[in-house]
Amino acid sequence: MKPLRVAMLGCGVVGTEVAARIVDRSEALAERIGAPLELSAVVVRDLAKARPGIDESLLTTDAETAIADADIVIELMGGIEPAKTLITAALDQGSSVVTANKALLAAHYGELMSAADRASVRLEHEAAVAGAIPIIRPVGDSLAGDRIDRIMGIVNGTTNYILDQMDSEGWDFDRALSTAQELGYAEADPTADVGGHDAAAKAAILSSLAFHAPVSSDDVHVEGIEGISAEMVATAKDQGFVIKLLAVCERVAESPAGPGLSARVYPALLRRSHPLASVRGAFNAVFIEAEAAGELMFYGQGAGGAPTASAVLGDVVSVARRRVLGGRGQYERPFHEDSRILPISAITTRYHITLDVVDRPGVLAAVSEVFADEGASIELMRQTVGEVDEDEMQHAKLVLATHSNTEAALARTVERLGDLDVVRAVSSVIRVEGQ
Amino acid sequence: MKPLRVAMLGCGVVGTEVAARIVDRSEALAERIGAPLELSAVVVRDLAKARPGIDESLLTTDAETAIADADIVIELMGGIEPAKTLITAALDQGSSVVTANKALLAAHYGELMSAADRASVRLEHEAAVAGAIPIIRPVGDSLAGDRIDRIMGIVNGTTNYILDQMDSEGWDFDRALSTAQELGYAEADPTADVGGHDAAAKAAILSSLAFHAPVSSDDVHVEGIEGISAEMVATAKDQGFVIKLLAVCERVAESPAGPGLSARVYPALLRRSHPLASVRGAFNAVFIEAEAAGELMFYGQGAGGAPTASAVLGDVVSVARRRVLGGRGQYERPFHEDSRILPISAITTRYHITLDVVDRPGVLAAVSEVFADEGASIELMRQTVGEVDEDEMQHAKLVLATHSNTEAALARTVERLGDLDVVRAVSSVIRVEGQ
Repeated sequence: MKPLRVAMLGCGVVGTEVAARIVDRSEALAERIGAPLELSAVVVRDLAKARPGIDESLLTTDAETAIADADIVIELMGGIEPAKTLITAALDQGSSVVTANKALLAAHYGELMSAADRASVRLEHEAAVAGAIPIIRPVGDSLAGDRIDRIMGIVNGTTNYILDQMDSEGWDFDRALSTAQELGYAEADPTADVGGHDAAAKAAILSSLAFHAPVSSDDVHVEGIEGISAEMVATAKDQGFVIKLLAVCERVAESPAGPGLSARVYPALLRRSHPLASVRGAFNAVFIEAEAAGELMFYGQGAGGAPTASAVLGDVVSVARRRVLGGRGQYERPFHEDSRILPISAITTRYHITLDVVDRPGVLAAVSEVFADEGASIELMRQTVGEVDEDEMQHAKLVLATHSNTEAALARTVERLGDLDVVRAVSSVIRVEGQ
Repeated sequence: MKPLRVAMLGCGVVGTEVAARIVDRSEALAERIGAPLELSAVVVRDLAKARPGIDESLLTTDAETAIADADIVIELMGGIEPAKTLITAALDQGSSVVTANKALLAAHYGELMSAADRASVRLEHEAAVAGAIPIIRPVGDSLAGDRIDRIMGIVNGTTNYILDQMDSEGWDFDRALSTAQELGYAEADPTADVGGHDAAAKAAILSSLAFHAPVSSDDVHVEGIEGISAEMVATAKDQGFVIKLLAVCERVAESPAGPGLSARVYPALLRRSHPLASVRGAFNAVFIEAEAAGELMFYGQGAGGAPTASAVLGDVVSVARRRVLGGRGQYERPFHEDSRILPISAITTRYHITLDVVDRPGVLAAVSEVFADEGASIELMRQTVGEVDEDEMQHAKLVLATHSNTEAALARTVERLGDLDVVRAVSSVIRVEGQ
């Protein structure tokens, strides 16, 4: 059979692995596809750069010609442009595209999927969420007869490594971050990871896929882990919890803003017995609650050259097989549900609040009154007596676990607690998930 | 669009859920498929039996007519015949089939897949392995560009519940089994579960799928959990292990019998830090090691009406969508690799051996000599002094952890240890996996 020509846009760590595997595993891939794959072009910005293992004659800076000449296009450049224009050109000419570009998909999922649909080709993107973990196909195909109600994911390896080291080794945030940087888990500018923005892009893609409605990065409420202290981690540990940066995607049937979808990223407490709690180091995992299937979890490496290349090649085999076997290759209509994104204030969650309070009678009453006033309710309250400070004032630590309340009520409650005379400081506020 | 007619063969717990969901979720399913589904017949053995929620006019005992009249056939009868004949008839007439029948697939995987391939239709079977956990599609599609080296699964909920209760509650086997029976997790005759035969069928299907080579139940080495005592579980716990019934499917590059495949089911020790160790209760999980993707795990409910119905409906949507969109629906050639199944004796594993020995000088030397003689090596040896028996003989317990050795060498070593004068009994022998 005639070889299928594959053009690769971009050739960094993942691209180098993908190119090597197309050559090394050519026989096995041909068996699975029913036709051989041929790497026809590798588009790079800098032709002068050494690229060990890549046939030099394939290197080019001319993306348009490479695409025009290919049956399948692999996009590994990252970023919005020129990736968007090039992918659209490939789809329009009838080539299927495989991409690992989460920023692009998080911003333009609907538009790109519609372009693929119009051209009756596929735009596959398994590598864009949680690296090697097969998640797109299980959510899109295996659970196609079910209703996904909630997805909760650890989808950023850098922050999971940092939080895991703080939990297991007792390190503070700075030490965990600098070690992550030394090990290559975190970049010199760690903002995208640590601030939750990378996780937010993945939350947008997962929401779009699971809820059949367009959700973009801008719709995702984002809080990072910069504020997580060693003390918060230690306190969580004492209480049987672990702190994880979670991407939560949810169908909400009832809220003050009505029914809708919620996509949010924040650090939250998880009970140690929760399946996500044992996800260690730089690993990723996605926990799904579906109406009929119940609880499911998918676990694996979320980044790295070889794992990401595995996901890219799975997609390449899939689109190649489809090309060999025929078929329109059309998706289900991607978006056939409403996408009413709820504001974070309308979401119901639970808080653990730690207060530094003056140790004198009436503190509990004052605190309780604020809760009652805001219609928020307390599940558990624990007070421990602390030191005497320079003003000879006796301090106490008051830990409060709330029942489920709206974010709006909890946020107002916290603000008012901070204003109380008896409260010297709101030491920490963190949400609880997974119960 | 014209509705797609769906005939269902068998209507037990899973069938009742599937039928209800086809009706309840008809709009969402039609959106995903691009055409409505219509339940056209429900084939049962006993028309007189009450079937709440099922439209009586659909019930029939005439499977042949129901199949002839359907676009898609769901087989939920179980057992080899008449399921095999009916599925083959459906495939031959050009209908795609969705089945949850693991016994049938484990016995005739190659033959049935070839029948589907000849007719250019699909035989989907996500529900046959690990219930609701999407595993067939990730292994067959998402990892299609990778090489799976090893699968290790907890694929039987009954035995996992029993072992988990023994571990967490300290119960003995009989109590755990009878509680499992009371809760409906185990059948009155628990042999298929407890003896490892159900897990072996799933190991055969997983091996066939992952290694592209026909592996049947008969090729799987099976040991059950009947011999696992409360003491073995407690000892494992003390040492940081948990005992799980594992289905292991492996590519073996080197063995005394040459390279080949191994599929085996037995109770084994797992370190508590292993992702499979925290799979509790009746949950299932499948752990995969792939060349590029590294370690992956899939976790969820392995049985039950609603979870299994979720997997069945995912497959129904998939074959229905394919019917709407066109395309040959052919598989990759299912078997394009060698299937040299290795005997268990050629497999390399590690043992923990507990001996009841006489407490006198020379015991360790005698034991060590047997190991040396058989070319097996000891990683760790620990002796604890026990009671004095009625013959005023001082007992001691000797725990040995071996290095990796062939099963043949380990089995011979254990046999010869039992023959030693200084050994009063071989108290337990259990394999270690997952390191």
